[in-house]
Amino acid sequence: MSNEMVIGVDLGGTHLRTALVDRGGRIIRRQRTATSIAHGAATTARRLIAECREQVAAAGTLGCCVVGIGLGVAGKVAHHRGWVVFSPNLPAMKNYPLGPELESALGLPVLLENDACAFGIGESWAGAGRGIANWVGLTLGTGIGGCLILDGRLWHGDNLGFVGELGHMVIQPEGPQCACGLRGCLEAHASGSALVAFVADAVAAGELGSGPLFERWRDGELDAKGVWECAEAGDPVAQKGFVRMGRALGLGLANLFAALGICRAIIGGGVSAAWNRFIDPLHQSLADHSSMLDAADAVIQRSALGDDAALLGAARLAFGR
Amino acid sequence: MSNEMVIGVDLGGTHLRTALVDRGGRIIRRQRTATSIAHGAATTARRLIAECREQVAAAGTLGCCVVGIGLGVAGKVAHHRGWVVFSPNLPAMKNYPLGPELESALGLPVLLENDACAFGIGESWAGAGRGIANWVGLTLGTGIGGCLILDGRLWHGDNLGFVGELGHMVIQPEGPQCACGLRGCLEAHASGSALVAFVADAVAAGELGSGPLFERWRDGELDAKGVWECAEAGDPVAQKGFVRMGRALGLGLANLFAALGICRAIIGGGVSAAWNRFIDPLHQSLADHSSMLDAADAVIQRSALGDDAALLGAARLAFGR
Repeated sequence: MSNEMVIGVDLGGTHLRTALVDRGGRIIRRQRTATSIAHGAATTARRLIAECREQVAAAGTLGCCVVGIGLGVAGKVAHHRGWVVFSPNLPAMKNYPLGPELESALGLPVLLENDACAFGIGESWAGAGRGIANWVGLTLGTGIGGCLILDGRLWHGDNLGFVGELGHMVIQPEGPQCACGLRGCLEAHASGSALVAFVADAVAAGELGSGPLFERWRDGELDAKGVWECAEAGDPVAQKGFVRMGRALGLGLANLFAALGICRAIIGGGVSAAWNRFIDPLHQSLADHSSMLDAADAVIQRSALGDDAALLGAARLAFGR
Repeated sequence: MSNEMVIGVDLGGTHLRTALVDRGGRIIRRQRTATSIAHGAATTARRLIAECREQVAAAGTLGCCVVGIGLGVAGKVAHHRGWVVFSPNLPAMKNYPLGPELESALGLPVLLENDACAFGIGESWAGAGRGIANWVGLTLGTGIGGCLILDGRLWHGDNLGFVGELGHMVIQPEGPQCACGLRGCLEAHASGSALVAFVADAVAAGELGSGPLFERWRDGELDAKGVWECAEAGDPVAQKGFVRMGRALGLGLANLFAALGICRAIIGGGVSAAWNRFIDPLHQSLADHSSMLDAADAVIQRSALGDDAALLGAARLAFGR
C-alpha cells in the first residue's frame, strides 16, 4: 500500500498550491500557481482540475496511485457537501460546490477543510504538534485563523460551520474595528491588517510623518512584511505594532488556557515570520493575564511546517482515518 | 444491582451537604450541616466521616448498600491523590488528604472533584445538560466557577490542576480588580462579590448615598442577595450591577462559542437566582460580540438541579464509568 499517495491542495486568495504527498507526510512533488479568482469560480475550479491531473500523471510515472484529494480553503466550508460556503479572499467561490465538481472530473474522493483547521491537522501529523494531545493553533496572516486540537484530534464543535475562530474573540471591548464588524477582536490587534491599521492610526494621530514606514504607508505599499522590515530597521512605531500584537496574542492565549486547562500553542502563518518581534511581549502578556496557569509551564511554538502546514493537513485529510 | 447507592457530598465554605443517591440520579435521603472549617481540617473531616456513617446506616435500613463516595469541593483538587490542593473558602484544607482519610475510615472508594466540575457532571447526568454533547457551564456565586462538557464528558484538559476557569478569563484588560490578582476577569464583573464591589464603587463615586441599598452597604450587610432584592425593588444602581453582570457573561460566552464552535451554556449557582435581572443583557451582549455565531442559535439555560447539581455530580462520579 506504500505506493498510495494523495494530493494536498492549499487554495488561498492569491495562490493555488498542490502537492503529491505520501503516507509518511513527505511532499514528493509540488506545484504552485497564482489563483485567477478574478476570472470567477469556474475558471479557478478548471485550473485546479488541470493541476490535479498533472499530479495524478506524475504519480503514475513514479509507479504510485493517487487515492484522494484534500483541500485547505481560506474560508468557511460545508464539510459534508464539499462546498465553499463563504471565503472573504475568494468571494466568487460563495456556495460553490468545489468538492463535487472535482470528484466528478477526477473520479477521486475530495475532502474540504478550512485552511486554519488544515494547518492544525498538518502540524499534528508532521509538524510541531506531533505527540501533543492538546494545543491551540493560530495562523497569522492578513487575518487570524485558529484551530483547537483536543485529545489529539481537530475539534469540530457542534459543526455550526465555524470553529476555532480565535481571531474573533473580543479581547478589548472598546478596541479597534475588526473586519468582521465587531470592535476589539484579537484579529484587530494581532493580524497583518492590524499592523497596517496601527501604522495608519499613528499617522492620523500625528505620531508618524516621515521616514521609510511613513513613505510606504503614504504610497499605499505598506503590508505586514513592510511593517516587519521597518521594525527590524529600528522604527519605533513599527516595533510598537508588534508589541501590541504580542500582548494581544498573550491575552487571548491566557484566556483559552484558563478555560481549557491546557498550556500549549503553535503559531504559523506568514506574519509569524516576525516571531522575534512579538514573542517576548506575548510571553509577558501571557504571564500578566494568567492567574491559574504558571506561565513558565506554557509552551508557545512556531509552526514547523511553515507554508506547507495547510497543504500537508489537507493531504492528511485525504488519507482518511 | 439496583440496591447499590452512593453518597454525594458538596463541601463548601459554609456548608457540608451529603445525599444518598441511586443509579437513576434520585436523591433518597439528604443531610445538611454548617461547616466548622474554623476548627480546622481534621475537625471537618471527622464531621464528614460521621455524616457518611449515618448515610451508610440509613442505606442499610433501606436494604441498600453504599458502593462509593463522591465529593464536590470548592477549590482545586488533585484527582489521583484525592487531596484538596487549595480552597479559597476552606483555607485550612490546603494540601489535605481528604480522600485517603475518608477511604480508610469508611472502607469505601472516594473520588474528589472541583465543585464547578461536579456541577457539570450533575447537570449532564440528571439536569439541563442531558443529551447535550457540548456546553459551557458557569456557576455564579461569591466567585465564578466553570466547566466545559465536550463530547458529552467533563473536559479535563492537560490535568494541570485547573480547568474551566471561565471566571478568570480577562474580558476587559483595564477592568476591575479580581480576587485572583488580575484586573478585568469575568469574575470581577459577574460574580456575587462583583455585585457588591459595584455598589461600593457607586458609593465611592458619589452615585449612591441614600436608600436601602446604601444602608445595607454602609452597615456591612450587603451581599449578592441584597443587591438582587434592591434591584427588584427598583434601585437603579443595583439594576446596573446586574446589567454589567449580564453583559460580561455574554461577552465571555461569545468568546468561548467562537473558539469552540458551540452554542450552548448552562448557568447555575446561587446568584443565578437573579436570572431575570441579567439574562436579557446577557443575550444582547452575546449578539453584540458574536460575528460567526448567529446569536439566535445560542441556547442559554438555567441549571435544572439548582443547589443539588454539584451533589448529584459528585454522586455520579462515585458510580464510576
